[in-house]
Amino acid sequence: MSGPIDKALRGRAEAVIPGGMYGHQSVGLLPDDYPQFFAGGDGARLTDVDGREYLDFMCAYGPNLFGYGHPGIDAAYVRQLEKGDALTGPGPLMVELAEALVAMVSHADWAMFCKNGTDATTMAMMTARAHTGRQALVLARGAYHGAAPWCTPRPGGVIPSDRSHQHFCTYNDIASLEAAVAAAGDDLAAIFAAPFRHDAFIDQSAPDPAYARRARELADKHGALLIVDDVRAGLRVARDCSWSAIGVSPDLSTWGKCIANGHPISALLGSDKARKAAASIYVTGSFWYASAAMAAGLETLKLVRETDYLERMQGLGETLRSGLDERARAAGFGLRQTGPATMPLFLFDDDPDLRKGFAWSSAMLARGVYVHPWHNMFLCAAMTDQDIAFALDAAEGAFADLKRKASSLGPVEKLAFLAAR
Amino acid sequence: MSGPIDKALRGRAEAVIPGGMYGHQSVGLLPDDYPQFFAGGDGARLTDVDGREYLDFMCAYGPNLFGYGHPGIDAAYVRQLEKGDALTGPGPLMVELAEALVAMVSHADWAMFCKNGTDATTMAMMTARAHTGRQALVLARGAYHGAAPWCTPRPGGVIPSDRSHQHFCTYNDIASLEAAVAAAGDDLAAIFAAPFRHDAFIDQSAPDPAYARRARELADKHGALLIVDDVRAGLRVARDCSWSAIGVSPDLSTWGKCIANGHPISALLGSDKARKAAASIYVTGSFWYASAAMAAGLETLKLVRETDYLERMQGLGETLRSGLDERARAAGFGLRQTGPATMPLFLFDDDPDLRKGFAWSSAMLARGVYVHPWHNMFLCAAMTDQDIAFALDAAEGAFADLKRKASSLGPVEKLAFLAAR
Repeated sequence: MSGPIDKALRGRAEAVIPGGMYGHQSVGLLPDDYPQFFAGGDGARLTDVDGREYLDFMCAYGPNLFGYGHPGIDAAYVRQLEKGDALTGPGPLMVELAEALVAMVSHADWAMFCKNGTDATTMAMMTARAHTGRQALVLARGAYHGAAPWCTPRPGGVIPSDRSHQHFCTYNDIASLEAAVAAAGDDLAAIFAAPFRHDAFIDQSAPDPAYARRARELADKHGALLIVDDVRAGLRVARDCSWSAIGVSPDLSTWGKCIANGHPISALLGSDKARKAAASIYVTGSFWYASAAMAAGLETLKLVRETDYLERMQGLGETLRSGLDERARAAGFGLRQTGPATMPLFLFDDDPDLRKGFAWSSAMLARGVYVHPWHNMFLCAAMTDQDIAFALDAAEGAFADLKRKASSLGPVEKLAFLAAR
Repeated sequence: MSGPIDKALRGRAEAVIPGGMYGHQSVGLLPDDYPQFFAGGDGARLTDVDGREYLDFMCAYGPNLFGYGHPGIDAAYVRQLEKGDALTGPGPLMVELAEALVAMVSHADWAMFCKNGTDATTMAMMTARAHTGRQALVLARGAYHGAAPWCTPRPGGVIPSDRSHQHFCTYNDIASLEAAVAAAGDDLAAIFAAPFRHDAFIDQSAPDPAYARRARELADKHGALLIVDDVRAGLRVARDCSWSAIGVSPDLSTWGKCIANGHPISALLGSDKARKAAASIYVTGSFWYASAAMAAGLETLKLVRETDYLERMQGLGETLRSGLDERARAAGFGLRQTGPATMPLFLFDDDPDLRKGFAWSSAMLARGVYVHPWHNMFLCAAMTDQDIAFALDAAEGAFADLKRKASSLGPVEKLAFLAAR
């Protein structure tokens, strides 16, 4: 069970927030001992409202790339806030940030800024429809591209017309991609692709380069646009669009989460081909032109360009992966660690309702390490070798715990829906 | 023409931002001398990148309620930023802010936070559809409710299915409201209403209380929800939902812009009736749970509750209105000032393509007062009697200017589309 202050806050939240909490930061589908409310963060560490500190492998579900409260990035934010943030027009930093992204992301010739990842994916969809004068989208079944009516993963409040003109394939399955494109016929506006398969509850998969190339070819053949949704993975896989590593350039890419290290900004980047269409859509938001988050973005991109943050994170991720593998085996568990080393997801073998995953994650939490039992995690550049050693020590204890309890674990009622899949 | 630094930035922006700028902060439909880029803001004043200072009657298109860079509000933001902003879960301030809004807004029993006004209106739509299990919306023709495919005011990138199940009435026209509700038949999910008619390019109108009451009755009769979209007007008309002044309570209201004095946060508020439906929709965003903007929101609401900001703004607005009226008459112009005194819109008589409005606004700009020729403006609580006197002096000069030039003004080419209305 979570601590007394957390519990009291949950009670108050129940009264004034529907369901007590909503969206991806609700702990409704996490083990009962996971805290809902946090008091603060510092570097790679998170403190809950009851004063318990955790090494945080969720990194705010992505935004924390260089550490919570990064002094240089936050100072840039505050300096700009003192000059001017949301004004009657944009500031020069909007141009500078667009230039910095265009210089860094090889397929990009232009940028548009917004606030949510969903804003960026929605603008990508609109741009593709404006570019082609067509309607149909090809998407991978189960891929997350945001939480607007056209893409939110749950049915509440969504009506059939929100999802019309959508054709689904299976990620990495070329035949299914071709079939979805064929189903779209001469109405194909865009093919959406996650940079790798990072759906919740299942093993992650790297993109098959042949699949990515085929998506590029099919988009070109049909005059449609290829969109890589890098909101979640951007800057944790490459200093460029994540598909640059496999040599495939999209026409549009979507970014968010960590591009300003947690300060609120997201972006749609595009190539010249799509520029005119992007200029023809009317999209906007009250805070989209605000300069302080752009100052933080410029400082974040400077660290991206000028430090070995990515190689260090990858090294830490590999150490974590091999260390966990060793400790899981030693304790007799099959632990599948999938996805890039900087964005791992852990699932236990023979664990259809995640009862092992829940028990092990709770045991990690009790040892001061915040891991997620069914969503990909995120490393940050503030993590150190000592942190990974700390996590591995915790894991050793947590595997031992699990071994003692494994045979007596009951089903996870809140995940009963998994059985129906 | 705008200044040399502005011009240079526009050139750079042309290369890396589609169309050079997008959305409501593009100056594409403003007089040519309006600057696109700003260096900073302080209180009621704005400085462009060429160092020219303006008394700003746009207030960032609403967000600036208590003055740019308000020391107390920004200090609250920065204090919370130092503790923790975007973390792996929300902080206690999310509950406190929801409690503060529920205590202040009479129809509200709960709150959900998001980032854009469009997020809030989209969540309202989804909540109404989840509550009723129906699809149809009734909206007033020309009303702005955001810039997602279902509501953006321009056609680029929008497909017909984005707009299906929408029925339109004319604001304040009860017969047209009844007809739209009848057209929705047994599929009516929601009636949307702006708190007053604040469409661009036309005179604003106060809500007819009989129209508002009829909307409430029709929603109740058909089991649909009534939504008041207070994103633009909230806190500039009342310390409650704007329709509280005419005694009509919605089921849902949407808020944004100034609720944290320009820091990025928006909200959906609702009554108990809609709570279960609101809990059933999956909506979220990377930065929706971040605490710093919530700290700024709490400080803003404290000023709303504890100061006479609204009465002062109303007084300043009335002084401006009567002073402008006097000066316009003296110069022989019919100037229609519509909307609440805190959110005025100015249109000249006999000015179908706004050539007079453009010339007068430019003359105001040259005298250090930023007014908008076709969009409602916003007063802020940082304005003083001296500021209004300064604006009235500028207006006197601008009317004299206009009188000299009026007969020789050419058509405003960029507004040629107005003639087609």
